[in-house]
Amino acid sequence: MSILDDAIQMKSVSPLMAAASIEHRNNALRSIKESLLSNKDEIFKANREDLERAASDNVAEAVVKRLKFDEHKLSDVCNGIDELIKLPDPLGKITLNRELDADLVLKRITCPIGVIGVIFEARPDALVQISSLCVKSGNCAILKGGKETASTNRVLFTVIKNAVEKAGLPGGCLFQAESHSEIDELLKCDGYVDLLIPRGSNAFVSYIMNNTKIPVMGHADGICHIYVDKEADLDTAVSVIIDAKLQYTAVCNAVETLLINREIAPKFLPMLKKAFDEKGVTVHGTKEVTDMIGGDTVTEADFKEYLKPEVSVKLVSDVNEAIAHINKYGSHHTDAIITKDDDAAAVFAMMVDSAGVYRNCSTRFADGFRYGFGAEVGVSTGKLHARGPVGLEGLVTYKYLLTGNGNIVGDYASGTKSFHFKDLD
Amino acid sequence: MSILDDAIQMKSVSPLMAAASIEHRNNALRSIKESLLSNKDEIFKANREDLERAASDNVAEAVVKRLKFDEHKLSDVCNGIDELIKLPDPLGKITLNRELDADLVLKRITCPIGVIGVIFEARPDALVQISSLCVKSGNCAILKGGKETASTNRVLFTVIKNAVEKAGLPGGCLFQAESHSEIDELLKCDGYVDLLIPRGSNAFVSYIMNNTKIPVMGHADGICHIYVDKEADLDTAVSVIIDAKLQYTAVCNAVETLLINREIAPKFLPMLKKAFDEKGVTVHGTKEVTDMIGGDTVTEADFKEYLKPEVSVKLVSDVNEAIAHINKYGSHHTDAIITKDDDAAAVFAMMVDSAGVYRNCSTRFADGFRYGFGAEVGVSTGKLHARGPVGLEGLVTYKYLLTGNGNIVGDYASGTKSFHFKDLD
Repeated sequence: MSILDDAIQMKSVSPLMAAASIEHRNNALRSIKESLLSNKDEIFKANREDLERAASDNVAEAVVKRLKFDEHKLSDVCNGIDELIKLPDPLGKITLNRELDADLVLKRITCPIGVIGVIFEARPDALVQISSLCVKSGNCAILKGGKETASTNRVLFTVIKNAVEKAGLPGGCLFQAESHSEIDELLKCDGYVDLLIPRGSNAFVSYIMNNTKIPVMGHADGICHIYVDKEADLDTAVSVIIDAKLQYTAVCNAVETLLINREIAPKFLPMLKKAFDEKGVTVHGTKEVTDMIGGDTVTEADFKEYLKPEVSVKLVSDVNEAIAHINKYGSHHTDAIITKDDDAAAVFAMMVDSAGVYRNCSTRFADGFRYGFGAEVGVSTGKLHARGPVGLEGLVTYKYLLTGNGNIVGDYASGTKSFHFKDLD
Repeated sequence: MSILDDAIQMKSVSPLMAAASIEHRNNALRSIKESLLSNKDEIFKANREDLERAASDNVAEAVVKRLKFDEHKLSDVCNGIDELIKLPDPLGKITLNRELDADLVLKRITCPIGVIGVIFEARPDALVQISSLCVKSGNCAILKGGKETASTNRVLFTVIKNAVEKAGLPGGCLFQAESHSEIDELLKCDGYVDLLIPRGSNAFVSYIMNNTKIPVMGHADGICHIYVDKEADLDTAVSVIIDAKLQYTAVCNAVETLLINREIAPKFLPMLKKAFDEKGVTVHGTKEVTDMIGGDTVTEADFKEYLKPEVSVKLVSDVNEAIAHINKYGSHHTDAIITKDDDAAAVFAMMVDSAGVYRNCSTRFADGFRYGFGAEVGVSTGKLHARGPVGLEGLVTYKYLLTGNGNIVGDYASGTKSFHFKDLD
């Protein structure tokens, strides 16, 4: 069987998944949790194989840390499943309920997207999180994990698939792709796969976006900005910048570019420089900046996503110049202003064209868990549906239901009947 | 200037448009209406040129009817603008308002999509409708109309653009593309144009979808189905089918395929045949159907979008077979069931994967005006944002606003602080 055959098969299963009750879907989540716990020895054994292979392949320590799936990680994913069970059903929510005429009622209700292909990096917990989110949201999923965790993923997937089917969800609602060549096959499954969610490097996500007709949800770059306004509390600014740059450097919501109001620069830049020196942060600044605090002199066209303890710094005259820079050079992910001035904050909120626009807090809050979504399948910088961290709500769409009593358009076109458009409670 | 230069310029204007107040945007709509009325002689004169050119080019009468822009059409578009002014502001709606921690509040608010490219057919009223919808929703728009209405469009566009700028909206928020070659230029403006809405033939829309990296909202096919269940009221079924097939045949929401429950076929098909003969509808049926009522014998693989008084007919055993056919051969636009059985209707509603799923009424209701949206820019069969008729709500997306008091992620990662996730009113 090719991936296309599997996708065609899954497409025919997806309406059954859409019709599964919330009790069924929550039972399947409970079944996943119990099966993970009762099969933990087998899972840990497979994970040791992956870790040994990584050691013999001299894989970097940071990566090895991500591969590890131990009691601690198992407990985390089980807690995550418990949280997910508690969340309300994202399906069947009525978002419009309108009487068009006496016996003609229009409802807009949420429903699953259908078949979702998720290509994710080498973290076994991601496989559990993503399949759980898809089960809760009534979606079928084709999962492709990283090759570094092949053994762990294979066991986890089998455990999850069996648990879900034992709980009575339709057979074939989850499918695992294992070989790298299957990614290119998956990209050609338009018409059967409704959505692709790629997670990984910038180059990898761009490749996916440029090589498929299937809608892609995600983001390639993560160039987040912090603008320090002339009305900023400067201690707050330093503390937020240090957190946003250093709390976890290898992630998309870490800050990469600082825009400093020129008026406060003589006082603020030395404060920032002191904090950076203590923490070992390298500054790439425009000449105006490096003339004041040293560092590597660059132009704004050189500003980039570092994903390490390095940062770009530039001075601006006001909030409008900051906004223009962010909209031109940013990646529309998450950008923050540090200010006590409500007017500047309002202009910034209205005019910065990003999925997250923050005031007086760290860009690192851009995350599904921290937004209270329970978990996330990714972060979207697209604007058409599901912008920002994507949790359950991002995995559903809607359909319009119209119920009549034999109503025909001819009667409304001729004027025999007319619409009265009354929104119901 | 190339279209790309215009798009880059427009992109820099779009945050100003996003920040324009609802008073400003409604004033611009009033200004458009007044200017159309005060410039009507010039508009009608340009329209006569288009009509004369169409006559000398022997353009089909149905098309000429669409080109016409007279007192009647002017009155229609002015009424449409009045309705649009009355609709609530689609921007700044708070769709999530959550306290993450004591001094850290997350809001999700609606905002414009940004720069929208609309390529529409030869109807001058479409230009007015689309630019009005974009103004109300705070979007910038690049408009490309059909060459048959070039003179009318040029005058209408100039009148609208001047009216909008006179009302104080940012200069350059609307732009007209005039030559056909500019469509291909527009398709390459990814990064500056946020959304394309093509309206036109199946082949044209498919061409757009396959030749751009910009998200496209719309639909190519419109193969709508009506399933007549064994518990249908048969007179209702005939009346709804006649309306759905004949009230306006050249449109995407006209019915193209009928699925008839086999149990009622011996009684129902002759009733249908009688109505079709009276109205001059040609039947393309599977052998089982044509054996009973005559007509052209075809297989289900031959079923298609006719856009004229022709229809495909097939028998099915039950609602599940109808659903499977619709999901496999349909275009996910709008499909209806005729039944008195609530269970069959519920299964149909849950499992048919279309933007509109109807019960006991005509597929022709799938339209922005008939849904009470005031107007529409098109109908979307995509599932990611704006499915079905697309009005004001389909022209906005959202951003997350997070407001803190110097909050840093480190405090939450270390356990010094913890989230409490409280949804506010």
